[in-house]
Amino acid sequence: MLIEQLQRVWHDEIPISKGMGIRIESFTDDTLIARAALAPNINVHGTAFAGSLYAIAALTGWGATWLQLEQRALSASIVIAAGAIDYDKPIADDIVARCRFDAASHATAWTELARNGKCRFPLECELGANDVVAARFRGDYAVRLKAATSAPASA
Amino acid sequence: MLIEQLQRVWHDEIPISKGMGIRIESFTDDTLIARAALAPNINVHGTAFAGSLYAIAALTGWGATWLQLEQRALSASIVIAAGAIDYDKPIADDIVARCRFDAASHATAWTELARNGKCRFPLECELGANDVVAARFRGDYAVRLKAATSAPASA
Repeated sequence: MLIEQLQRVWHDEIPISKGMGIRIESFTDDTLIARAALAPNINVHGTAFAGSLYAIAALTGWGATWLQLEQRALSASIVIAAGAIDYDKPIADDIVARCRFDAASHATAWTELARNGKCRFPLECELGANDVVAARFRGDYAVRLKAATSAPASA
Repeated sequence: MLIEQLQRVWHDEIPISKGMGIRIESFTDDTLIARAALAPNINVHGTAFAGSLYAIAALTGWGATWLQLEQRALSASIVIAAGAIDYDKPIADDIVARCRFDAASHATAWTELARNGKCRFPLECELGANDVVAARFRGDYAVRLKAATSAPASA
């Protein structure tokens, strides 16, 4: 299943995501929800470390993009070009990150990806605990299709 | 020594900073330099994970603020209210974060802290490897003095 594959990519290839205990909770209606326990991400105030919150949000946006590409059977590299986060409230419980990749709202980017092999998807993620939004993240994800491997002319 | 104390605060009270292997390299001329090995912070591309870069920069800015307050013997809480980062180049080596807290350029904030017990310090950090700047971080640090503990009127 696709979300189990994404979970493996995170933990195997981005080891700090395992250190943060990030797990995928669900993926429905183009919305990816990830969760992490507070303990490994705690700070001097006994609440969630700002750096962990950003990392979890950035990874959730990356995962939401990865899922869209996989669903279209597109092999592509995804890198975050820029990110910003506003912290409104501290989180003193499990950290929950939610990112909706509304494919319809990115029509221009999809067309550009098909035409030029690259594009950017601006995404927003919310972070919270117990249904309260505690922080808002915005990331710019740069996607580049991988060249199809073709048989060499002479081999 | 102050930087050893800061290193202990990071590793003891923000455990993921230990997981990322963040160590203080130096603190001179109001500039705090922190370093982390690539291995615990690697991503799917074999370079530094964007979330780790942000976390390391955010922590370096926090540490630079902490050092300024400690040097003035001020007991205060420091929280990051907002952060933003631009990634220009990938980092495929040790991650080095550099943050200069130029006390003179924050004169208004210091006055406000003395008058109202709270203020914000906007700080910038550079991230790189081998003297190349690979990412630029900006963070807004909200500082609030802790009330001096006075003896109770009757005890």
